[in-house]
Amino acid sequence: MTQLIDVIRNGVNTEQMYGTLDAIKADPSLGTFQFRAHNHWIDGAHNRSTIKAFYGAGQEDSTRESTFTVDAGEPAVLLGVDTGPNPAEHLLHALAACLTTSLVYVAAARKVRLTEVESTLEGDMDVRGALGLSDEVRNGFTNIRVNFKVKGDAPPEKLRELVERAQARSVVFDIVTNGVPVEVGLATA
Amino acid sequence: MTQLIDVIRNGVNTEQMYGTLDAIKADPSLGTFQFRAHNHWIDGAHNRSTIKAFYGAGQEDSTRESTFTVDAGEPAVLLGVDTGPNPAEHLLHALAACLTTSLVYVAAARKVRLTEVESTLEGDMDVRGALGLSDEVRNGFTNIRVNFKVKGDAPPEKLRELVERAQARSVVFDIVTNGVPVEVGLATA
Repeated sequence: MTQLIDVIRNGVNTEQMYGTLDAIKADPSLGTFQFRAHNHWIDGAHNRSTIKAFYGAGQEDSTRESTFTVDAGEPAVLLGVDTGPNPAEHLLHALAACLTTSLVYVAAARKVRLTEVESTLEGDMDVRGALGLSDEVRNGFTNIRVNFKVKGDAPPEKLRELVERAQARSVVFDIVTNGVPVEVGLATA
Repeated sequence: MTQLIDVIRNGVNTEQMYGTLDAIKADPSLGTFQFRAHNHWIDGAHNRSTIKAFYGAGQEDSTRESTFTVDAGEPAVLLGVDTGPNPAEHLLHALAACLTTSLVYVAAARKVRLTEVESTLEGDMDVRGALGLSDEVRNGFTNIRVNFKVKGDAPPEKLRELVERAQARSVVFDIVTNGVPVEVGLATA
């Protein structure tokens, strides 16, 4: 029982974690992943993504049992009827989720038990960019602030180090801060 | 009736759209928006964002009636139990949703009725970056491909022009392709 508790830290099976790391170290091609989303427009600002299949660890995944659906919308002031968070809010969620999971995994690897992780994110924008009213402001957020509240069985300096390490390893933090090339194709028939 | 059908195009109230554009043109300060998300860790790779309040058009929003919740997780191979799409998949959803809404709004403004908008997104990554196994690969996607299928009452060239305009105005496309500064703060007590 004590042994099982030691293996599972922060809800992460650390034995499985070390096994995964060793397997990818031994065969780096297992690190190649492709994630996917399929989106379809419903009406106005309402659209929906379905998410299931991905490629990773040398094969198409066959473990996911159900398809996730995520809806997007806009509030009234941006011409929608609140069918879901808007795309910019979904991006903030993706960033919060990635930093949080990175922090939880890093803490598990470094033998720190976390008891609480919360974060509040704010993104500022001038919608004149996206509405085509000004070429002097950008379309997207000019800046994003993330404020974490973290508790666990480690001193504040250690928790700070874990948050820094999470930033240094987060997939979405890298994408959002550094940008990624996006290719857009179109079929009309 | 005919008039109402002309006003509502692609589910977008174009009269309200022109009214919004005129109001922001007349008072550019109305273009200042701030979007927010609050996230809390549940267990392992499972965390949840709640999204409601935002600032825009000169005031704190008071129109949204309910709070949205969005869950994140990881599949088994990445040490989770599939409690939701993973953060990278959520980012693909945010990008798909934003490009789609931008396209729908641009089409409404340019008097094109759309009948179908679908998109498939793929993002490639080498997870050795995020797992801390290699400093030679980045943490995030190396590239993202978006493939749209669009139908409507306009010739293919016109639909292509609308998709290009949607890219040129999309909030999340801007963020993901160009990057945004992210500031991370931490409270430990």
